[in-house]
Amino acid sequence: MADVASPIRVTVWGEGRHEKRDATVAAHYPDGMHATIAAGIREHAGAAVTVRCTTLDDPEQGLPDAVLAETDVLTWWGHIAHDEVADELVDRVQQRVLAGMGLVVLHSGHWSKIFKRLMGTSCALRWRNGDDRELVWTVDPTHPVAAGVPSPIVIPAQEMYGEFFDIPAPDELVFVSSFTGGEVFRSGCAFRRGRGRIFYFSPGDQDYPVYHHPDVRRVIANAAVWVAGPAREVTPIAYAPTGWFE
Amino acid sequence: MADVASPIRVTVWGEGRHEKRDATVAAHYPDGMHATIAAGIREHAGAAVTVRCTTLDDPEQGLPDAVLAETDVLTWWGHIAHDEVADELVDRVQQRVLAGMGLVVLHSGHWSKIFKRLMGTSCALRWRNGDDRELVWTVDPTHPVAAGVPSPIVIPAQEMYGEFFDIPAPDELVFVSSFTGGEVFRSGCAFRRGRGRIFYFSPGDQDYPVYHHPDVRRVIANAAVWVAGPAREVTPIAYAPTGWFE
Amino acid sequence: MADVASPIRVTVWGEGRHEKRDATVAAHYPDGMHATIAAGIREHAGAAVTVRCTTLDDPEQGLPDAVLAETDVLTWWGHIAHDEVADELVDRVQQRVLAGMGLVVLHSGHWSKIFKRLMGTSCALRWRNGDDRELVWTVDPTHPVAAGVPSPIVIPAQEMYGEFFDIPAPDELVFVSSFTGGEVFRSGCAFRRGRGRIFYFSPGDQDYPVYHHPDVRRVIANAAVWVAGPAREVTPIAYAPTGWFE
Amino acid sequence: MADVASPIRVTVWGEGRHEKRDATVAAHYPDGMHATIAAGIREHAGAAVTVRCTTLDDPEQGLPDAVLAETDVLTWWGHIAHDEVADELVDRVQQRVLAGMGLVVLHSGHWSKIFKRLMGTSCALRWRNGDDRELVWTVDPTHPVAAGVPSPIVIPAQEMYGEFFDIPAPDELVFVSSFTGGEVFRSGCAFRRGRGRIFYFSPGDQDYPVYHHPDVRRVIANAAVWVAGPAREVTPIAYAPTGWFE
Repeated sequence: MADVASPIRVTVWGEGRHEKRDATVAAHYPDGMHATIAAGIREHAGAAVTVRCTTLDDPEQGLPDAVLAETDVLTWWGHIAHDEVADELVDRVQQRVLAGMGLVVLHSGHWSKIFKRLMGTSCALRWRNGDDRELVWTVDPTHPVAAGVPSPIVIPAQEMYGEFFDIPAPDELVFVSSFTGGEVFRSGCAFRRGRGRIFYFSPGDQDYPVYHHPDVRRVIANAAVWVAGPAREVTPIAYAPTGWFE
Repeated sequence: MADVASPIRVTVWGEGRHEKRDATVAAHYPDGMHATIAAGIREHAGAAVTVRCTTLDDPEQGLPDAVLAETDVLTWWGHIAHDEVADELVDRVQQRVLAGMGLVVLHSGHWSKIFKRLMGTSCALRWRNGDDRELVWTVDPTHPVAAGVPSPIVIPAQEMYGEFFDIPAPDELVFVSSFTGGEVFRSGCAFRRGRGRIFYFSPGDQDYPVYHHPDVRRVIANAAVWVAGPAREVTPIAYAPTGWFE
Repeated sequence: MADVASPIRVTVWGEGRHEKRDATVAAHYPDGMHATIAAGIREHAGAAVTVRCTTLDDPEQGLPDAVLAETDVLTWWGHIAHDEVADELVDRVQQRVLAGMGLVVLHSGHWSKIFKRLMGTSCALRWRNGDDRELVWTVDPTHPVAAGVPSPIVIPAQEMYGEFFDIPAPDELVFVSSFTGGEVFRSGCAFRRGRGRIFYFSPGDQDYPVYHHPDVRRVIANAAVWVAGPAREVTPIAYAPTGWFE
Repeated sequence: MADVASPIRVTVWGEGRHEKRDATVAAHYPDGMHATIAAGIREHAGAAVTVRCTTLDDPEQGLPDAVLAETDVLTWWGHIAHDEVADELVDRVQQRVLAGMGLVVLHSGHWSKIFKRLMGTSCALRWRNGDDRELVWTVDPTHPVAAGVPSPIVIPAQEMYGEFFDIPAPDELVFVSSFTGGEVFRSGCAFRRGRGRIFYFSPGDQDYPVYHHPDVRRVIANAAVWVAGPAREVTPIAYAPTGWFE
């Protein structure tokens, strides 16, 4: 358990594959998408956080127990290698989230094993890679994750994600996006599971430089702080017998 | 209390003023907007309902106690005369809703006294009368109110209603709309209050022939049936002392 | 897909092991707990349903594809053999629920693989087998599942289940129980997942004759009808690309 | 608007009548219930807050505009004089809450004009003044309002409040209580309305020294900080026309 007054320990997990094979992605993100995501969190959350990066191709897929044990908040971006993530790792991440670790799931991470595991649904959606303009509207203006960004956030070009998005009704719906094609999407969704908080935020396709967008960075930094929660006690919930109450 | 097997008694309340003064509205709705709304409910709900109309300019503003006592579901459309509705009538309608009467609030009814009373918030929103195309997307595909309509419903021309819409988070969010201008709006919202159900559905400005749209009519008919609930017991909730439980 | 007007096809799945080894359970339920649960559904839902039973020790653990394909609503009671249920069966049941099949999870079924899969959480709780009296209070008096039962339902002797119950916040909280020991429990919880509805209802330990209790039977029958939904369309949700909207 | 880094300005509003007429209440609370509530907030929230008291019998019923304008969080306890509170004051408090002021409603404040106004429902409940022991169980263990208190909080003697409690389903259900008589009650409920947060907490009858209970004091202090929100911007929500988005 972290000292409450100490910085939130954020681990940015990146799949890290597109950058190695797609020239466009490498051009947008020469140090990897994860590095840009991490820089945005540092930029906006400042001394409240310490941030490190890890990727699928690192030892133990980037998340050995020792790393998870020192992680208050995990962010997750993956796309073409979801199936490579070991089920055993998904088990461990799920247990950590239920015990209190925060989780920020980004864009195509909606289709990751860990997000589907925590939601219990297919997490399917409709999509189109067609240079849509995305407008991200705030529908919960007092939510901490929406602090400091305009409504709408304007993203000039982005992949379209559209409804129906097969998730449980979020505990708090914070953002709804529209796209040039007229589609809508619940693009910012907060969930509480076990002792953990989860935030899903959809902007961020690899084919567009979305993680350089200042408002997108601000939202992700806000989310990282919000899912950390007030106490950061990592305590499993027990299935336990009990005596009579005295 | 109605016999459960008997038809749902729907009362369509219309403000009925635009039709008398605006040629465009009268052209769209020669018998009044309320008559068109009522026809749509009859068309789609059939033998499950009996429908009558009443308006602001009828005696007792259309809703004497005798009418309310025979109403299982009330639909409400108003716009330019919200302030004329007597507070005493708002009190009576609120009491009926809390005791189990269903309420369907349409379009500019968001700004009615009765909707603001039941929500407790300002029910403010942003708008533009600019011939936007509205697309109404289903985000809760199993909800009875969404049965039988495509996603999206396409409304070629309609007033834009945009977020932030100052309502409590709906108990069930069923529809989200987008507009030509890129705005989004929570256009179909279900609320439970006391023993009553409320459904707000935003399509339907007086300047456009929206209530002739077959999918819009279907949704309103679905909503009228849904808010009626399974039992239609109109029973006030008591503030009551109680003895020890035996 | 079933004809909407035809009866709801309910399959009562029972673990069926306690009855074979524990004299007390066999005395309460000589034909098996599942037979008593099925009888209660038939008694209260009447012509609206057809009900069959199947158990863990039947071929393909009671749920071959042919049975699932003819099931609109599945009820699930298990306890000592959760681990024996094949992961492959859990996959198939999950897919059916997400595609629209209703699911009623009973008592110790909270700890079943299928419930944990659909919730994404540990579903842990606190318990005590100590002859507590359980009082089941209705906190959503208009919910169809609560129709026709008193508040509270009085269960003279029952196992205690207590908070914290590690589930996602239910979409609708219908019942809250108290116990002799002073504990409370969210004992009736509705969830929507994919196109399916799920209802969890906690009364019903094998050591007490709870499924003979008329109010408990009524709730389970209500739940079976409610999770069937209005349409019973079993349609998978697609992860699908899409062209520009026209 | 307050500087975010400055202390939260809490105003504890007390009805202040029981203390003047009932010897038991005066014995429990020689300086008034409000003074004890204020002391508990100071004790637990420390430098994060500044706290002042005001009562119904102060000028302008204790809440002239100048006081409201300097209030980030208002706590409300009333009982026998709800009807004396001016509708005009209720209007002003509602507007402030919708614009971002936090509100903590205590015990019999459930029946106050301002709470009923913001909820839109009757806020009725069942009760018994019979020396019940109240156990306050946490059902949302990560909620900031539940930080630092045991589950259950044990209150040796207290008035019973029981379901059905006629409120909208809370946005977040944090506490559920049981009583000696077996009743249950949603005793800690969070609501978001407009830009404001509201927390209802039921322990605290005038006939029992409940506001001296350390865990109750901790919860109220937590709630005062939580409803203050992250930004404390008091900004009305506009009903506003808008041009096309560029």
